[in-house]
Amino acid sequence: MIYLDNAATTIHKPPCVVRAVTEALTSLGNASRGAHEGALATNRLVYRTRRKLASFFGCPESEKVIFTCNSTEALNIAICGTLHEGDHVITTVLEHNSVLRPLYRMQNERGVSLGFVPADKQGCIDYADFERMIRPQTRAIVCTHASNLTGNMLDIRRIGRIAKEHKLLFIVDASQTAGAVPIDMVQMGISLLCFTGHKSMMGPQGTGGLCINGDIEIEPLKTGGSGVQSFLTEQPREYPTRLEAGTLNGHGIAGLSAAVDFISQTGIDVIRAHEQELARTFYRLITGIPDIHIYGDHTSDERSPIVALNIADLDSAIVADELAYSYGIATRAGAHCAPLMHKALGTQEQGAVRFSFGFYNTIGECEAAAEALRQIADRRVL
Amino acid sequence: MIYLDNAATTIHKPPCVVRAVTEALTSLGNASRGAHEGALATNRLVYRTRRKLASFFGCPESEKVIFTCNSTEALNIAICGTLHEGDHVITTVLEHNSVLRPLYRMQNERGVSLGFVPADKQGCIDYADFERMIRPQTRAIVCTHASNLTGNMLDIRRIGRIAKEHKLLFIVDASQTAGAVPIDMVQMGISLLCFTGHKSMMGPQGTGGLCINGDIEIEPLKTGGSGVQSFLTEQPREYPTRLEAGTLNGHGIAGLSAAVDFISQTGIDVIRAHEQELARTFYRLITGIPDIHIYGDHTSDERSPIVALNIADLDSAIVADELAYSYGIATRAGAHCAPLMHKALGTQEQGAVRFSFGFYNTIGECEAAAEALRQIADRRVL
Repeated sequence: MIYLDNAATTIHKPPCVVRAVTEALTSLGNASRGAHEGALATNRLVYRTRRKLASFFGCPESEKVIFTCNSTEALNIAICGTLHEGDHVITTVLEHNSVLRPLYRMQNERGVSLGFVPADKQGCIDYADFERMIRPQTRAIVCTHASNLTGNMLDIRRIGRIAKEHKLLFIVDASQTAGAVPIDMVQMGISLLCFTGHKSMMGPQGTGGLCINGDIEIEPLKTGGSGVQSFLTEQPREYPTRLEAGTLNGHGIAGLSAAVDFISQTGIDVIRAHEQELARTFYRLITGIPDIHIYGDHTSDERSPIVALNIADLDSAIVADELAYSYGIATRAGAHCAPLMHKALGTQEQGAVRFSFGFYNTIGECEAAAEALRQIADRRVL
Repeated sequence: MIYLDNAATTIHKPPCVVRAVTEALTSLGNASRGAHEGALATNRLVYRTRRKLASFFGCPESEKVIFTCNSTEALNIAICGTLHEGDHVITTVLEHNSVLRPLYRMQNERGVSLGFVPADKQGCIDYADFERMIRPQTRAIVCTHASNLTGNMLDIRRIGRIAKEHKLLFIVDASQTAGAVPIDMVQMGISLLCFTGHKSMMGPQGTGGLCINGDIEIEPLKTGGSGVQSFLTEQPREYPTRLEAGTLNGHGIAGLSAAVDFISQTGIDVIRAHEQELARTFYRLITGIPDIHIYGDHTSDERSPIVALNIADLDSAIVADELAYSYGIATRAGAHCAPLMHKALGTQEQGAVRFSFGFYNTIGECEAAAEALRQIADRRVL
């Protein structure tokens, strides 16, 4: 199978990640539960991984790296844990449902009002819209670092400056960029960074996190055992315990730790250059194909390695099925949990076929995928 | 190291569990995201594991097996997702903070009132107290299947009958019993069963679940991507999607699936008999030691394989440290996230040293632990 669905998850993990999880499964105790070697080993692993991730993302304090099971959980904590009755939030139409649904929920349950920065048919926004939308009650900007549909990246540094100028919380969904693009929370002015371990980080499923930059009060989503301070009737207020209840996924964290090592040692710039080359090569090979419509702004270098497209008016699911079953090429069709992006592009009915490239893909695979697409477009008999 | 902290987590996993996770790490896509082989393989794994767990716990519908990252998450969903303003809930002093803290939170945020069935110095309750405490506003009984401190088990079937008679929701924390004791939700009258994968199930950390028996409305804790129905602004209402947002821990679920197979093939009765023999042997070997005070009701056969104790008035942490560093025996001291149980036993200051046995422990290890305890008690010079 030629796997081009890395935006959903990466199937090919670095060998060190697999080894780390396997070793952890045979040795790890429960972090913060007990003072014996098994538990201490896990404590050390968890502590070291917090530090690594803090360094990796430019988060000033490692105890403000909170482990979650995925970025959806991190976004739920960030959004539901900070917004108050009557707040106004600015977001965009690029967002994934992991941002949209918690925001709609806050709208329903807490009277939070939402403003959506629109996008044109290329999926591009106008940065001036952020400032236009700001009101006295505006509390936060919540947006994605890159669209999981078009691959268009937002200039987070620029939005961060707007947020800072207006004293707004800046919550960033880095699901598509963590591990693929360098991120520095302080330089980019990010208040809360939400990431997942199993996509470009190339770590295990069941891992992710929320990084907190500065003194931000976040109410917990879940409460429960904290290992220490058992006699408090509330979750302890100190980070990270405040936002972590119950046993951590130590086995997954072991894999995530190895994944950070791998990316750091390989060099995130090396990874990025390779992934961009794959996406550009594929794009170049298919632009000439008649009846192919490609979405997104491919004039920019600042993109995720994603190419989303349709063939004439063919249902995207039919094209994706053909790619999978006749050519062994894995992509993703449909709505991609990004309903407003599809609305902006005009693809609600048709969906789109998304090709997303990862570190372990090759130029040869891009060529094979382009050729398959060409044949499908030529035939248009499925 | 002699590992006797299985109530915190099991360190020794069945080889098939380790293999399953390793294989999954090299092949799994994202469940419900995409129609290619990688995603479909994960879908099938997830579907099959729901069915296995439904069968394992006597849950009538496999789509009502919800995956969580641990039992704390399952309890938060169960408790925060069902209770309404002004409800009354009956619970016990045996509970872990993963039950207590969500209940206290409901008390604070939703005016839920709580009644606590007390326990005597053996950690035993009077079942008549449940009925005495029932009021018109009583909505639910929430309790543990077994105390993580004393190992005393509650007669869940009996409490389930009380709940059924009074039309109450019955939420059970099976953290200490899932995989160690046969559980049948229908026979026991359990409405919501909360379990974790990494203790007696001998699966990976980062896994667990909530099983729903019947038509129960549960509001989600987290909202986000659901893979299907992208254009809904709310989380889809169908189970399991309603209560699962974002990418599942497919790698962990692969391990959990193998763990269920292992327990089923070995025979849960075989596992139980072995663990009970370990605990009884240890108990018998230490009852004669002067100055040892053992907690819990050891006259009953229906117990978790736990023995909690103190030596005279020695701080439990000092004893546990001595066991760990001079004898290589891992136990857990302190408050065990069970503040009310310690209050009932009178051990808030001292804590207790908890020995908890698992499938891979041996009688020889029990003997070594008993001997170590004897020496420490004899010496009492640390």
